[in-house]
Amino acid sequence: MTTTRHFASDNNAPIHPAILAAITAANSGHARAYGDDPWTAAMDAQFREHFGAAARAWCVFGGTGANVLGLQALTQPHHTVLCAEGAHIDVDECGAPERYTGCKLIPIPTPDGKLTPDLVDARIHHVGDQHHVQPRVISITQATEIGTVYEPHEIRALSEFARKRSLYLHMDGARIANAAASLYVPLRAITTDVGVDVLSFGGTKNGLMGAEAVVILNPEIGADFQFLRKQAMQLASKMRFVACQLARVLERDLWRETAAHANAMARRLGEGAASVPGVKLAYPVQANGVFAHLPSPWIPALQERSFFYVWDEPRSVVRWMCSFDTTPEDVDGLIAALREAARGN
Amino acid sequence: MTTTRHFASDNNAPIHPAILAAITAANSGHARAYGDDPWTAAMDAQFREHFGAAARAWCVFGGTGANVLGLQALTQPHHTVLCAEGAHIDVDECGAPERYTGCKLIPIPTPDGKLTPDLVDARIHHVGDQHHVQPRVISITQATEIGTVYEPHEIRALSEFARKRSLYLHMDGARIANAAASLYVPLRAITTDVGVDVLSFGGTKNGLMGAEAVVILNPEIGADFQFLRKQAMQLASKMRFVACQLARVLERDLWRETAAHANAMARRLGEGAASVPGVKLAYPVQANGVFAHLPSPWIPALQERSFFYVWDEPRSVVRWMCSFDTTPEDVDGLIAALREAARGN
Amino acid sequence: MTTTRHFASDNNAPIHPAILAAITAANSGHARAYGDDPWTAAMDAQFREHFGAAARAWCVFGGTGANVLGLQALTQPHHTVLCAEGAHIDVDECGAPERYTGCKLIPIPTPDGKLTPDLVDARIHHVGDQHHVQPRVISITQATEIGTVYEPHEIRALSEFARKRSLYLHMDGARIANAAASLYVPLRAITTDVGVDVLSFGGTKNGLMGAEAVVILNPEIGADFQFLRKQAMQLASKMRFVACQLARVLERDLWRETAAHANAMARRLGEGAASVPGVKLAYPVQANGVFAHLPSPWIPALQERSFFYVWDEPRSVVRWMCSFDTTPEDVDGLIAALREAARGN
Amino acid sequence: MTTTRHFASDNNAPIHPAILAAITAANSGHARAYGDDPWTAAMDAQFREHFGAAARAWCVFGGTGANVLGLQALTQPHHTVLCAEGAHIDVDECGAPERYTGCKLIPIPTPDGKLTPDLVDARIHHVGDQHHVQPRVISITQATEIGTVYEPHEIRALSEFARKRSLYLHMDGARIANAAASLYVPLRAITTDVGVDVLSFGGTKNGLMGAEAVVILNPEIGADFQFLRKQAMQLASKMRFVACQLARVLERDLWRETAAHANAMARRLGEGAASVPGVKLAYPVQANGVFAHLPSPWIPALQERSFFYVWDEPRSVVRWMCSFDTTPEDVDGLIAALREAARGN
Repeated sequence: MTTTRHFASDNNAPIHPAILAAITAANSGHARAYGDDPWTAAMDAQFREHFGAAARAWCVFGGTGANVLGLQALTQPHHTVLCAEGAHIDVDECGAPERYTGCKLIPIPTPDGKLTPDLVDARIHHVGDQHHVQPRVISITQATEIGTVYEPHEIRALSEFARKRSLYLHMDGARIANAAASLYVPLRAITTDVGVDVLSFGGTKNGLMGAEAVVILNPEIGADFQFLRKQAMQLASKMRFVACQLARVLERDLWRETAAHANAMARRLGEGAASVPGVKLAYPVQANGVFAHLPSPWIPALQERSFFYVWDEPRSVVRWMCSFDTTPEDVDGLIAALREAARGN
Repeated sequence: MTTTRHFASDNNAPIHPAILAAITAANSGHARAYGDDPWTAAMDAQFREHFGAAARAWCVFGGTGANVLGLQALTQPHHTVLCAEGAHIDVDECGAPERYTGCKLIPIPTPDGKLTPDLVDARIHHVGDQHHVQPRVISITQATEIGTVYEPHEIRALSEFARKRSLYLHMDGARIANAAASLYVPLRAITTDVGVDVLSFGGTKNGLMGAEAVVILNPEIGADFQFLRKQAMQLASKMRFVACQLARVLERDLWRETAAHANAMARRLGEGAASVPGVKLAYPVQANGVFAHLPSPWIPALQERSFFYVWDEPRSVVRWMCSFDTTPEDVDGLIAALREAARGN
Repeated sequence: MTTTRHFASDNNAPIHPAILAAITAANSGHARAYGDDPWTAAMDAQFREHFGAAARAWCVFGGTGANVLGLQALTQPHHTVLCAEGAHIDVDECGAPERYTGCKLIPIPTPDGKLTPDLVDARIHHVGDQHHVQPRVISITQATEIGTVYEPHEIRALSEFARKRSLYLHMDGARIANAAASLYVPLRAITTDVGVDVLSFGGTKNGLMGAEAVVILNPEIGADFQFLRKQAMQLASKMRFVACQLARVLERDLWRETAAHANAMARRLGEGAASVPGVKLAYPVQANGVFAHLPSPWIPALQERSFFYVWDEPRSVVRWMCSFDTTPEDVDGLIAALREAARGN
Repeated sequence: MTTTRHFASDNNAPIHPAILAAITAANSGHARAYGDDPWTAAMDAQFREHFGAAARAWCVFGGTGANVLGLQALTQPHHTVLCAEGAHIDVDECGAPERYTGCKLIPIPTPDGKLTPDLVDARIHHVGDQHHVQPRVISITQATEIGTVYEPHEIRALSEFARKRSLYLHMDGARIANAAASLYVPLRAITTDVGVDVLSFGGTKNGLMGAEAVVILNPEIGADFQFLRKQAMQLASKMRFVACQLARVLERDLWRETAAHANAMARRLGEGAASVPGVKLAYPVQANGVFAHLPSPWIPALQERSFFYVWDEPRSVVRWMCSFDTTPEDVDGLIAALREAARGN
């Protein structure tokens, strides 16, 4: 295998060397299965360190599993989950949330991927009416699917609104590291401290081989969560090898280092791309994703050079994701290719 | 970490060095996510090599996921799954099969963990009656939960019975490698060639870090399986690191080498233990597990020395599992400890 | 009890005398339960008479049960159901369709409550992509929730589109009698003959005490439907008393007589109301419902006089439903009250 | 239709005249749908009268719906429901409880259809272990499926055991009227007063056209029950016609009159049958069912004369059910036929 890198997705990147080293280090002797091992204990401690003493972390295999389980812990089947249009839970999980929680998802159009109390309020109807599903959870994505980032006060406004309306606040944090790095704040500043009830903590898109966690921040939630995880087919047998990844990425703030790098590369790419005639950023670059309007004839040749996805075909918007291993040279190469395309026009 | 080994479970063992090497080798450059990568293609080829050209393999995270998905591919919610009493799907998966397929499981007592056409036949009732769930799948475990192994002709008898009664034959092969190694046959001799419709192929208990596969052998099954896997939260994002494990264990028959070793250690342990006064084997040792009646006062000290589980408290039966890394010295040490306990009595 | 009538809903009306007579007539001696009785056989014959020899009718308790079961017969949990915004299945069934089929519902805005191939086509995405739920059913309501009626050719256009895209066409016919009466066509002209696969046949809103049927028109659908019905808690024990209602309403075209009367009353009301200054019809009156913009200050006094529901609070649109027992005097009384309100303004 | 009566089932009987009169009386004018009507209010009052001021009754269409909803109110999908072998929820509801609650049912063999604390205790395992479903509900049937009746103290023993083990006590009371009549006690003496948490109150088998109720006796249960009922497709549109049946059967103890009569007929039949050489009662006759061992060659001719079901083919046990309309002549006719069969032998 060559060491090709491209901008298709942060989950196209390999395992960060420090994570692979942690897996290798954990590969010694026998350890009890299913979480009764020192690596899982270390992971638990790291989550408490970063999210507060009441935080309880449950590692799972992937992001869909984390989201479904987090929502299941907050809902009954007659509830609804309000989310932004384009939310991963609504469009990218093959209906797993509906299938497994029974709930209806209510996607709400937003200008920038971010919900607000007003946007949510306008979609709350029929409370207490037996014919209608009942609102229960606001689910936000941090960073959003289009690369924007909620400020702490925006999350707090949502959690305060949620409390008032007897709703819970769920966060899909598949890229929470990128958000916190972008804001220069600790992880708890955008979760525990601003009223998030349950978090999907993302690792895979930030250099892990494959590990996410449901982090329950509200102590009134999740009494039976161990059974939910097992039943949802998310209990790892040799759990040490999942837990050690999460422990390591939280240790000595590796998460911030990797995410900040990816963010910096995205900023560099965003600025460079925006300076090319014919290219226009579709959304502000606040995390590790760059969304840009591109003349559609340019796209095939650029994709051949270095693969990426068209995000919105009709609007000719493409998505470039940066990851922990994206280099300035990779970025500059893409910008150069854009310039060339522009000249060719 | 020390290099402790014990007999608690084959999933307490670490990653086999060749598997970790495969993961490390796959950690190079970017690769498309979700299975569109060369490692997954290599895995597919290996499964076709071992199970026949029509076999389609779908890698998943764990054994419960594999079993649930395999059963889902074969059933509708008004069906039943007939299995042996003590089957993993019935007692160790926290109700995931019922929850996710909707089906009722019918556990059938057996003398040796193995179903037969007669045992199943006696539990088929009310076919076509709208008040009753309808039999649809016979699910067997190979090797069984108590360490016995189905012979090829026994499986064929079940599949022929199944065809006649419009049932499917599902195999939970969490330890299929141990079964095939025990029988000195290729993998297809106890699956494809004897009429198994869907197989859960186990890797984690045979030296993998964490990888299993649903292998669909009946070409009429599983048209939409990709959606089922995603919806069941079993689609790996960085799939290359799951697929490469399965590819490697099938390559150059590593699976047989590791399993045959574990089986040999179990035989050595079974013979040694049976020679100790006061110890009596509960079941024949045909794979990598040893089940023995032990005077209950012996147990705590033995467990302290090297951990294992009591399998059946009232009958004072313990379980010792051997794995790819169990050494003759480990086995002889346990036998010596048993002798010592016997002398102490 | 007085003989009050109002315009709140056609399910606020009592049992039609001929239906109650049928129930009373069926109340003689013992009859086998669960459908093995002459009344159910008579019902089956009536449905074949009205919908063609291949039609198979399954009586159920209510409209939500009929819709959920009809959709379940057509879907797997990774599918979607495309329906008009405001469809009963999407907004009035407390999430039963999602909960029981696992599917996601996709509500599509329409000008007049009616889907078209173009409207549906614009919402079909990601076919064959494992991350996304897959389109499977177009569900239309006849007559629609806002009192409009699909013409036969409009339904045929949808079914032809559906065939081309490997979709099924489902019809929620809670008010199919009103639609057929409005169009002066037989029931099969808007179902069997124009490609509907599965129909919810409504009775309760047309004078029955409580009875609906899932009518399966596509002979390739529903092999196991008896089990689906029982499992969905929709199998009546003393079925003769449900079946006899459906048999009677289909006998000698009672359905058309009752529905045509309700439609005529709605037309009379629509015309009368539209002639009152300040009142404006919101939708054409094509079945038994009248939707009108009303000055909101008028509403409370009018509701006190004779109860009805506000359909759309912000737009101040009210709904008046006519039923088999609505009299011209009832209608004229409401029109007079509207005139009085207009004068008072 | 002739006025044939037979012994096949109490749900083969027609509607009791007083119930049909109540339906007819309710058929006057318009009434709000879905329970906001005087008949439903009257039903509520009757249930409070019979089961105590805290009882909340929710009428549903049938017994399976009542059982499933009652269990759903008490469980999460990782729970188990312990019931007697042969319980209706386990064998006669086409898997609806598993499908709709997600729970596993644990059938427990009993000598007489009745659970005891000891029988249940022996099946409680693995509490708190994440791999295993967790015991949550004991479900008993009163009267049992084989015609026996729990004494109040037996129910109290179960509820006390349940409290101690953090379980709930559910009662399938499809024939609760027969049980209470048999014991000469008020309904609350075998429910509210002895610790039942949730009851399925049966009406259909006791002369109703079709109506059952979930009666929630534990005030801590069922906060959201209205949504559960609607989502489970059990909310009647013209509810007055369901509610009035339940109100009437509770009024002036009609329930006791009809059930006591059916019980008396069963006693008469049991005594008569037992006196016939070759016939042996299989269980004590404590409610309205008679279960008898019969020489199998007798059966076809007897069934032809007056239909009934074979309950247990291998043991040649038949079931005769009496209902509110069974006459002494019917009973004596069957006894005479048995004598004739005995003579013919």
